[in-house]
Amino acid sequence: MAVYTDVSDEALRAFLQEYELGELLSYKGIAEGVENSNFYLHTSTGHYILTLYEKRVSEADLPFFINLMGHLARAGLACPQPVRNRAGTALGRLCGRPAAIVTFLEGVSLSRPNAEHCRALGAALAGLHAAGRDFPMVRENNLSVGAWRPLFAQAEAQADTVAPGLAARTRADLDILEGAWPKDLPGGVIHADLFTDNVFFIGDAVSGLIDFYFACTDAFAYDLAISLNAWCFDADGTFHRDKAGAMLAGYDAVRTLEPAEIAAIPVLARGAAMRFMLTRLVDWLNVPPGALVQPKDPLEYDRRLAFHRTAADARDYGWEG
Amino acid sequence: MAVYTDVSDEALRAFLQEYELGELLSYKGIAEGVENSNFYLHTSTGHYILTLYEKRVSEADLPFFINLMGHLARAGLACPQPVRNRAGTALGRLCGRPAAIVTFLEGVSLSRPNAEHCRALGAALAGLHAAGRDFPMVRENNLSVGAWRPLFAQAEAQADTVAPGLAARTRADLDILEGAWPKDLPGGVIHADLFTDNVFFIGDAVSGLIDFYFACTDAFAYDLAISLNAWCFDADGTFHRDKAGAMLAGYDAVRTLEPAEIAAIPVLARGAAMRFMLTRLVDWLNVPPGALVQPKDPLEYDRRLAFHRTAADARDYGWEG
Repeated sequence: MAVYTDVSDEALRAFLQEYELGELLSYKGIAEGVENSNFYLHTSTGHYILTLYEKRVSEADLPFFINLMGHLARAGLACPQPVRNRAGTALGRLCGRPAAIVTFLEGVSLSRPNAEHCRALGAALAGLHAAGRDFPMVRENNLSVGAWRPLFAQAEAQADTVAPGLAARTRADLDILEGAWPKDLPGGVIHADLFTDNVFFIGDAVSGLIDFYFACTDAFAYDLAISLNAWCFDADGTFHRDKAGAMLAGYDAVRTLEPAEIAAIPVLARGAAMRFMLTRLVDWLNVPPGALVQPKDPLEYDRRLAFHRTAADARDYGWEG
Repeated sequence: MAVYTDVSDEALRAFLQEYELGELLSYKGIAEGVENSNFYLHTSTGHYILTLYEKRVSEADLPFFINLMGHLARAGLACPQPVRNRAGTALGRLCGRPAAIVTFLEGVSLSRPNAEHCRALGAALAGLHAAGRDFPMVRENNLSVGAWRPLFAQAEAQADTVAPGLAARTRADLDILEGAWPKDLPGGVIHADLFTDNVFFIGDAVSGLIDFYFACTDAFAYDLAISLNAWCFDADGTFHRDKAGAMLAGYDAVRTLEPAEIAAIPVLARGAAMRFMLTRLVDWLNVPPGALVQPKDPLEYDRRLAFHRTAADARDYGWEG
C-alpha cells in the first residue's frame, strides 16, 4: 500500500483540461494497489479513480487493460469504466507516467468472506467471462505453466532457506503440472488476480471488480481456480469446502461448466497455487533494502499445494453438480 | 504520507455500529497527514474522514482538538465537523487507537498560491480566530519560545554538520528572541500549523481548513506569522512581499490588527521560523533507520531566518495599513 508519485494540483489541473470532467473539487492519494499510484478524484461531474502506472506495469500492455475495462463496463459488468479525454483516448500522461481516469466504484472488500460471498463471487466471475467473450484483443498469460520453471530457477537455490524441502516438492509438482496441464479448455479474457481485495461488496452483493492489470487470455476455469485458492483457504492452509462448493455452484449457475473444465479443477487449482507460490517466493528472496512494501508469504501457497496434492477430483473442491 | 494502521472491514463495521451513519459504501486509506492514519469514508449518509490517532498525538490533547473542531464548525468556519456517536461522544476507539469521524471537506491544497490566495488565507485565518473567541478550553503552546532552547540543545552539537555556522547563528537568534518576545498580545485559539497543505481551495476561494492537531492557545498574530513563513517564501528563501502584504491586508479586513500586533510582526515571524527550523532540525538529525517519511529540510527555515534578521518593521512584510 503506497502512493509512489506526488501529483501537484497544478499538474493535475493541466491534465484535467484534456477532459470534460468539470471543476476539480478534491483529490487524495489512496493506499490501494501495490503496483501503481492511485488517487481518489472528485470533480463537479462525479467521483473517479486516477491511476498513474508505475514501472511494474508494462506500458505496451496498457491499451489491453484500458480497452478491456471499457468493453466489460459497456457490457454491463460492474468494473471501472475508463473516461475518455477530449481527444477520444482514455490513456494520457501525467508526471511523466502513463495515466488514466476511471469511474469510482462503491463497495468494500471483505477480509473474511463466507460461503454466500463466495457464491456471489463465482457468479460475478462467470459474468466477467461472459462479458469478455467478444473482446477482440489478446494478451498471452505470461505467468502460466510455461513461466513457472524459469521463475523457480530464480529461487531454487535458496528455496530451502524459506522452508525445508520446498525445492524438492516444487520440482516434483512442476513435473506433474507440466505433464498434466490441460489444453483446449474454453477460454477468453480472464481476470487472473481476483483476490478478495479486488472485489467490492455492498452488504452481501458484489458491487464491483477492480484491478485488471493481470488480465490476459487463458482458460476460464483457470480464473476460477485462482479465486478458489484466494477465497477458500485460511492463511494456515485450512480448506473450506463449503466456500469452494458455493463458488463453483455460483459460477455454474451463470455459465455452465463443461465436463472437461470440471475434470480439470484439481490440476488447475494446483497450478494456480504454484503460480502464486512462485511469484511470492521470488519476491520474498529479493526484497530490496528499505522496501516500503512487505512481501507476501509464499508458504501460504505451499500449504495450499499440500491440499491440492491430495485432491482426486472436483468433488474434493465441493463440486456437487 | 502514510497509512500506519490497517483497518479491516469487520473492525470498521463494528465501530460504525456505534454511529448513525447508515450503510458502509466504501473506505480507502488516504495519504494525508504524517501524524495519523486517515481514511476516506463513504456511507449512505455522506462523505467523511476517519482518523486513527497514532502515537505522535497525545491522547490527553484529543478532547481539546475534537471539541475545538466542533466549536469552530458550529460557529460557521469551514473545518471538519466531528461526528458524534450514539453515546454522544465524537471520540471512540478502533484497532486499539483513539479514533474519530469528521465530515469530509471538498477542496484542493495549492502547491503555488499567489497573492490573492494569500489574501483569502489571511481572511480565513482571521475568521478562525473570531470563531474561536468563546471556546472555553485552553491548551498551552508547547512549541513556543520557552521550548526552543531545550529543542536546540538536542541538536546543537550536530547543527554545523547540517550547515556551517548554523549553531552560532541559532544561539544568537535565541538570545534575541527570548529577550524581545512579546507578551500580552491579543490571543485565543490559534491553528499553529496553517501551511498550504492544510488549506483547501475551490477555484480561488478557501473551502476548508484542516489538521487542527497543533492548535493551542497563543497570540493571534503569531498564527499569522506562521502562515507568513509558510506561504510567502520559496524553498530557496526568496520572500514575496506582495503575498505577505496581501495576507496581512486580508486578515486585517476581517479582524483589525492592533498597533502592538503590527509592531510585533518581525519578531513573531522570526520566532515562527525558528520554531519550524528547530523541530525540523531535530527530526533531520534523528531519522530512524528504515523510516517511511522523508524529513523536511530545516535549512528552508534557516534561509527564512536570514530574511527576518534584516526586517525592521511590518512594512518590510508588505504591511501598508
